[in-house]
Order: sequence, then C-alpha cells, then structure tokens
Amino acid sequence: MGQCNCRKNSPLTRALRQDCQELTDVERAIETVINQFHCYAVKGQKEYLTPNEMRELVVQKLPHLGKCVGPLEEKIECMGDPDEAKLEFGEYWDMMGDAAKGCRRK
Amino acid sequence: MGQCNCRKNSPLTRALRQDCQELTDVERAIETVINQFHCYAVKGQKEYLTPNEMRELVVQKLPHLGKCVGPLEEKIECMGDPDEAKLEFGEYWDMMGDAAKGCRRK
Repeated sequence: MGQCNCRKNSPLTRALRQDCQELTDVERAIETVINQFHCYAVKGQKEYLTPNEMRELVVQKLPHLGKCVGPLEEKIECMGDPDEAKLEFGEYWDMMGDAAKGCRRK
Repeated sequence: MGQCNCRKNSPLTRALRQDCQELTDVERAIETVINQFHCYAVKGQKEYLTPNEMRELVVQKLPHLGKCVGPLEEKIECMGDPDEAKLEFGEYWDMMGDAAKGCRRK
C-alpha cells in the first residue's frame, strides 16, 4: 500500500494517450493526488478510504503537511464506527485543501 | 505569467530546508498546485485570481482537464463585475477538485 504505481492505468494517462499531448505540471500534480487516493483505497476499491487507510496515507505521504490537516485521531474519531466509516474522494480532496491552506499560512 | 518559478521561495520549500527531509510526491504535487495559483495571482499579490488570470490559468494549465471544471465563461460571469471579482485560494482549490473529480469519472 502506498507503493503501487497506478499511473499507467489512470484516466488522465488514458486521455493523454488519446490526444498525444503532454500533461502540464498542474495536471500531473492533480493526477498524483488522485493516484495516491486510489493506491490507499484498497478495501473500498478506489471509491473510499477506511479510517486506517486514511491514517496511513497522512502519516506516510504528508510528513510535513499532516499537521495542517488538524488532529488526525480526532478527525478519525469524527468519522464514526471504524468498521463502517468511509472517506470519499471529495472529502479527501478537501482534506488535502486543508493541508495546502496550512502550508500557505506557514 | 505562468512561467515563473516560485518553488525556491515556497513555504513548503522553506519548511523542507528547516528539517532537511525530502518532500513526498503528494506534498510536491500540492506545492505545484499552490505555486501555480501564486504565479497567476499577480494583481492580487498571491491572494486571489482576477477573472482574466483564472481564464489564463485554466486555458494554459488545464488543457486536458479544463472541461471538467465546467463552462469557463459561465463560471467567470458568475464571479460578477470583472474589475472587482476575485477567486480566492479556497475557491481555486475547489475548482481543481472539480477537475480531479471529472478526471476520475472519465
């Protein structure tokens, strides 16, 4: 987990193959953020992160920015029953936005 | 515009210098998305994009994903008076999220 390379099969890479144009740096960045979600969302088959998967992603992939996301264990507790809780892509994107905003304030 | 390289002075790069650890691929991706905002947000001194700056960013930096953001001119019109309208960082992040969600649906 977190070590997979989903790039080959990502939707953007498929689109790129179709029109033969290079992705821009921003598009590649967006693709990286999407791919990490897919890599960690194993139980939910790329549809959602479980609380444990979310914890792993934040700890492993946001060592500098994790604190901008807010207290991690508190966030996980707010998700509810650990066996049922799901973090969907939109919420994940918002969480990355909190990290980005925290980074801008630094 | 859009050609600047803000990386040297970005908050994340400063943090990196302090703790001497490499950024992860996700952190670097987040930094890229932030830096593009800063590069285009000239009039607002990195605080907001004007409608014209937003148009330039979408056209130049999201050639594959721009359509996932929705009709651009409609979005710009919704921002109101072109001389007054501002797209702040949180709204920009949400717009990039729309692009990411559109990309996942492809």
